[in-house]
Amino acid sequence: MQGVVVKFGGSSVATPEKIGRIAEGIIKRKESAGQIVAVVSAMGKTTNGLIELSQGICPDPDKRAMDMLLATGEQVSIALLSMALIARGCPAVALTGWQAGILTEDSHMNSRIRCVDTARLQRELDAGNVVVVAGFQGVTQDDEITTLGRGGSDTTAVALAASLGWPCEIYTDVEGIYNIDPRLHTGAKKLDEISHSETFELSCLGAKVIEPRSVELAAKYGVDLQILLSTMDRPGTRITQKGDIMEQNVVNKISVLDHLLLVNVEVPPENTLGKLFARLADAKVNIDVISRTPSGREVSFTTAMESAPDIARVLDGMQLTHQIKRDNCKVSVVGNAIRTHPGVAARAFNAFYQHKVPFRQVSTSEISISFIVDESSKQQAVQALIEAFGL
Amino acid sequence: MQGVVVKFGGSSVATPEKIGRIAEGIIKRKESAGQIVAVVSAMGKTTNGLIELSQGICPDPDKRAMDMLLATGEQVSIALLSMALIARGCPAVALTGWQAGILTEDSHMNSRIRCVDTARLQRELDAGNVVVVAGFQGVTQDDEITTLGRGGSDTTAVALAASLGWPCEIYTDVEGIYNIDPRLHTGAKKLDEISHSETFELSCLGAKVIEPRSVELAAKYGVDLQILLSTMDRPGTRITQKGDIMEQNVVNKISVLDHLLLVNVEVPPENTLGKLFARLADAKVNIDVISRTPSGREVSFTTAMESAPDIARVLDGMQLTHQIKRDNCKVSVVGNAIRTHPGVAARAFNAFYQHKVPFRQVSTSEISISFIVDESSKQQAVQALIEAFGL
Repeated sequence: MQGVVVKFGGSSVATPEKIGRIAEGIIKRKESAGQIVAVVSAMGKTTNGLIELSQGICPDPDKRAMDMLLATGEQVSIALLSMALIARGCPAVALTGWQAGILTEDSHMNSRIRCVDTARLQRELDAGNVVVVAGFQGVTQDDEITTLGRGGSDTTAVALAASLGWPCEIYTDVEGIYNIDPRLHTGAKKLDEISHSETFELSCLGAKVIEPRSVELAAKYGVDLQILLSTMDRPGTRITQKGDIMEQNVVNKISVLDHLLLVNVEVPPENTLGKLFARLADAKVNIDVISRTPSGREVSFTTAMESAPDIARVLDGMQLTHQIKRDNCKVSVVGNAIRTHPGVAARAFNAFYQHKVPFRQVSTSEISISFIVDESSKQQAVQALIEAFGL
Repeated sequence: MQGVVVKFGGSSVATPEKIGRIAEGIIKRKESAGQIVAVVSAMGKTTNGLIELSQGICPDPDKRAMDMLLATGEQVSIALLSMALIARGCPAVALTGWQAGILTEDSHMNSRIRCVDTARLQRELDAGNVVVVAGFQGVTQDDEITTLGRGGSDTTAVALAASLGWPCEIYTDVEGIYNIDPRLHTGAKKLDEISHSETFELSCLGAKVIEPRSVELAAKYGVDLQILLSTMDRPGTRITQKGDIMEQNVVNKISVLDHLLLVNVEVPPENTLGKLFARLADAKVNIDVISRTPSGREVSFTTAMESAPDIARVLDGMQLTHQIKRDNCKVSVVGNAIRTHPGVAARAFNAFYQHKVPFRQVSTSEISISFIVDESSKQQAVQALIEAFGL
């Protein structure tokens, strides 16, 4: 039977009243969609509250225990949403990650979905239920509770959509994907349609509406994704496998990723770089932009703020001299056609030079150019790029 | 290997600081005990907070969803306690009800433990871990999360102790079991030892230190129980299968159960009583004292306050005329030897008459006599019985 996976983030289920409204939206959506699987995150700031609670116990809590703690957030949401649906006469059943067959790797706090065993899910759907699934969490083959890290609920939703062969609708507090973050530029435009690859690049570069992992997963399994406002009353942005519909523009989007660490490491003569990045990978630190001085004596890279303790531990363990600089951000210009249009980099560098925006690192991909700047220069950098590319 | 099951209630784990202290107590207890399984309840007023949250969704929430919601409370506690143990260098692993193999019946919100599959538990103990188990919750054979109702964490602890063949220590905010509630009478005495059957009677009659279900379970499986103060630094009250050590006293304890509903039902001529109590049983309403007028035209019974909506539904459904009176309490005198010493009932009635304490119902068992009185007469009733039996 046909259906749709709908996903609601924490702010959409922050209060019992909001959960009631989501329940009504789901009941209405069911009329046209057939069957519904609803994936939800923890209510509002619940996850932060749980992290704070753990910090009252110790500064670096055991990761297995942390997963067990964090998984309660989504369990509360699914219980309440299923209650709200049932109270409105809509048969519903809430399933935790382990009940829904979300099977993950053995690692904790940033685990990855191995596969989805849809047997229970299918049974509940066949019985006429809206199935409410806890996002962000899964279970290992040894019955250990795991969580999926940042953006895990999006990943859960896309993985379920892929397993069921259904489209996936991500409801959020914005109307869709914009060419520039509307908070940074009042003239930002909402996109009606965008390709998986552009969305992936945008989300990697800081557009917060959806996590890159879930876009990658959607692209891999051909899941039709849509980002919509959680009022459920207007069209959003469709993310499809179709060719990019804005190919005529060289650069059509600007993206900003905040709160980065910039780590600078002095590398001794013998080759330790391979070892360094292997150790960081073991510690599950995601490295972003890497630069190396021509002398080969220094390497610098950016990464998310929360990796700071892990990075310090690895670098101290290897007795490497290093500096960690906080409060950086990455400002990027994105466009599917950058690779085919020369001169984009030149125009960007020129804009930074003319507006006197100091930057610390640069990196480029096939469809983006990114500058690492101090948080204090962010707005200035965005303005320079808007002008340079006439956005 | 030998070990002990220790259980901590909600007030003992109400804050991260308190959890830290419990962790230290457990580490110390482990030195003498060998292996340890620690059962914990939800932190402080968490369960009430979750119930309140559900009330924001609807007045009579789905019971399956309610169990899923409530089970998060204990999951938070076990995650934090295991973190606290690990942070102090003590290997520990937290297990939810389903992970710990607590298998229950299919019913929700007041389920009963069918059996404990100790395979995982034993594996974790053998690996040198303190195993921290979520109290109050279990799982059905169909992977449904259930909760055990009032006092469920005590039941979990005793069931685990029975399965492992270990003693069970219930840590609480009182020093043990008293002959009279110390809040009602300043001359109350702590008992060093008491029999299962007397404890069962006492707890049924309102002594709040331990729930009757877990005492019954302990008696059935010969579990050596102890009630102690959660500071873990002094002896409490041991509940054993040994003969009653206070047999020479006719009446040696007074017990008070607050917040009872007194329900009065007019029964039509044809026999509907069997049907009535069958329906109430289906609705999982626990009936306490039942009285019937000699004419057979009325029946009255007491029950817990929270059963009010279920009772009203059953009685309305059967179209029976009834009155429900709130704010009653049951004041009981308890002693193993009541059945062998005539005149106890007479002395009690006399005391109520002399002190002019109005009572609404009376019931007797082999080892207790109970009076249902209005809450406003409670203190007066207790005083009358203390004087009558020289306590």
